Amino acid sequence: MFSVTVRDHMMIAHSFRGDVFGPAQRLHGATYVVDATFSRVELDADNIVVDIGRATEELHAVLGELTYRNLDDEPAFSGMNTSTEALAEVIADRLAEQVHAGAFGDGALELTAIMVTLRESHVASASYERPL
Amino acid sequence: MFSVTVRDHMMIAHSFRGDVFGPAQRLHGATYVVDATFSRVELDADNIVVDIGRATEELHAVLGELTYRNLDDEPAFSGMNTSTEALAEVIADRLAEQVHAGAFGDGALELTAIMVTLRESHVASASYERPL
Amino acid sequence: MFSVTVRDHMMIAHSFRGDVFGPAQRLHGATYVVDATFSRVELDADNIVVDIGRATEELHAVLGELTYRNLDDEPAFSGMNTSTEALAEVIADRLAEQVHAGAFGDGALELTAIMVTLRESHVASASYERPL
Amino acid sequence: MFSVTVRDHMMIAHSFRGDVFGPAQRLHGATYVVDATFSRVELDADNIVVDIGRATEELHAVLGELTYRNLDDEPAFSGMNTSTEALAEVIADRLAEQVHAGAFGDGALELTAIMVTLRESHVASASYERPL
Amino acid sequence: MFSVTVRDHMMIAHSFRGDVFGPAQRLHGATYVVDATFSRVELDADNIVVDIGRATEELHAVLGELTYRNLDDEPAFSGMNTSTEALAEVIADRLAEQVHAGAFGDGALELTAIMVTLRESHVASASYERPL
Amino acid sequence: MFSVTVRDHMMIAHSFRGDVFGPAQRLHGATYVVDATFSRVELDADNIVVDIGRATEELHAVLGELTYRNLDDEPAFSGMNTSTEALAEVIADRLAEQVHAGAFGDGALELTAIMVTLRESHVASASYERPL
Repeated sequence: MFSVTVRDHMMIAHSFRGDVFGPAQRLHGATYVVDATFSRVELDADNIVVDIGRATEELHAVLGELTYRNLDDEPAFSGMNTSTEALAEVIADRLAEQVHAGAFGDGALELTAIMVTLRESHVASASYERPL
Repeated sequence: MFSVTVRDHMMIAHSFRGDVFGPAQRLHGATYVVDATFSRVELDADNIVVDIGRATEELHAVLGELTYRNLDDEPAFSGMNTSTEALAEVIADRLAEQVHAGAFGDGALELTAIMVTLRESHVASASYERPL
Repeated sequence: MFSVTVRDHMMIAHSFRGDVFGPAQRLHGATYVVDATFSRVELDADNIVVDIGRATEELHAVLGELTYRNLDDEPAFSGMNTSTEALAEVIADRLAEQVHAGAFGDGALELTAIMVTLRESHVASASYERPL
Repeated sequence: MFSVTVRDHMMIAHSFRGDVFGPAQRLHGATYVVDATFSRVELDADNIVVDIGRATEELHAVLGELTYRNLDDEPAFSGMNTSTEALAEVIADRLAEQVHAGAFGDGALELTAIMVTLRESHVASASYERPL
Repeated sequence: MFSVTVRDHMMIAHSFRGDVFGPAQRLHGATYVVDATFSRVELDADNIVVDIGRATEELHAVLGELTYRNLDDEPAFSGMNTSTEALAEVIADRLAEQVHAGAFGDGALELTAIMVTLRESHVASASYERPL
Repeated sequence: MFSVTVRDHMMIAHSFRGDVFGPAQRLHGATYVVDATFSRVELDADNIVVDIGRATEELHAVLGELTYRNLDDEPAFSGMNTSTEALAEVIADRLAEQVHAGAFGDGALELTAIMVTLRESHVASASYERPL
């Protein structure tokens, strides 16, 4: 099994609902350093998993719709706790849509899985992995 | 599959028995930077894998029983090489006990696996993963 | 010259005023991983710069007054752009006050400088250094 | 499941063929920080996955045949795009050969898998995992 | 004293002349993760050292003239060992020219120093610092 | 001003005397990831600060006399608290002796300063800087 990982980041504001979140129920924010990992069984005709340049651009485009925003005001997240793990799923699903739409190239249709990891600090992170 | 990872560290002394360990047969020590990863299939009602704050506290409590000690003198490790990989298992098992005892909350009973990674330097680490 | 550095983090929301900030004029947020460095010419009677445990606690206390907040709503920052570099100064000044008030112990009165670095992502950071 | 990871690096020149590579079709180079991860189900009689010292030496030996070279001139890579993911496979396969040849010791014959990750920058990496 | 640091990278091929370089006399390559640090005594009217976005763009432009190249073929480096420390000076000087030319904005004319650090692996780096 | 930094590590046991150290008065241990930084005003005839390969070897030799030991039993440290900052000084002084003895080559006699940083965990480090 082969995989390629690219990294970018986003900086957002949000708040959480639920006693479990303690002081994080207040409006605060986070930098998420985001790793997107693409996997497949065999390399393509160019001997790669996916073009690292294109994967970087696609990840940047997906994060560009989230960064520098207050997620509490985004209709897409209405009534939802935008936890680190939930945001990992959102980003993975949006990347998967782009793979299926051909944005990563025809070779990328052989990708088998995407994993997205969000590092919210030097001591905490969350991941979501899904098939393609 | 979702996961959350929290990080802490411990600083211990120990020695190893066996020719394979070379100079590490002498009493020496290590800082272990410890990552504990908790996994589950679906998020809970709060949209999380596990409360990061509580997971951080539980990891800190488990490491608190090991740090600032000479493991050669600890009855729990009598006659055992406290290798990096063996300590990863000890920590994962103790965290699993706490999950089963309810210390991570009722939602955490849906956790499916724990992985513990100990980084002993910038060039070496070891992990142990187990189901829950 | 000796120095000791301790690390912690905070997660805040804020917005900026000024065309130079582009999309960061919108309400967004950041995780700041904060390094506080304390310097002195000679070590104290215990052979240390400052107690790492106490420095960690004092940094945590200073960050505790900022984390999980929207800085736009904090009276202390009224009318001020809470840029990474400006926050580094705020934290350094608050730590300096605590040093002068004796919170780091009598030995810490020999400290000569504090530097605070805030890492806002894997690709950007800012620092402020001041004498004591 | 237990694993041990050791890290080293290599510094090579190469070029790629194929429009997908854009400016990387020119002769350029890379530092690859290489992580080799060895896995097994149970620890050996010494309570380890594999001797970290020996694994470090074997990884260093494998990388020693690649580093400080122009891979375009190496017969082993004739007509092949030496992408990050393809080099991960080469290194994993050479390590696997050494495991099977007994270079890691008799206990290492119980290893079940090798994963090799090459970090080509602070924002991109690739991995290959194979059974043993 | 305040400072801001931005990070990017470049991937180049080169070789060295001189016995001291051993195997690095062969054509090989490197990824340099590059940190550029800009310093000044007081913050500007926007409460910043320099616009992080603009500094990031300018660093990217300077590295864009070096990356994906064989430095042995670049006229600018004819007869010169392009060591890590020498490249740090080249990049710092080119950034200084851009500051003086106004590319960082008028406020940046108050910058007092630039430091450039090139990390060539996880175990080696070099820096050059100069006044402005 | 130019500088070059090389990294290695050591793993030691020790204990501290003094109430300020709390639980660290017990025998425990640490991994120190050690950065040694060498500075000079102008590059040498080979266009370098110091040969990175030789600096790496010399740092490894100095750490080789400390690693895998209980520092409480070392005559060199009798009656001394081997704090992180004190060990930084020991290592810097031993490297300085080697520079003066010519172990880094004749060009290295132009070095002006050494700084040694010991990272004891992901959240704490200490440094010592001295002229040459």
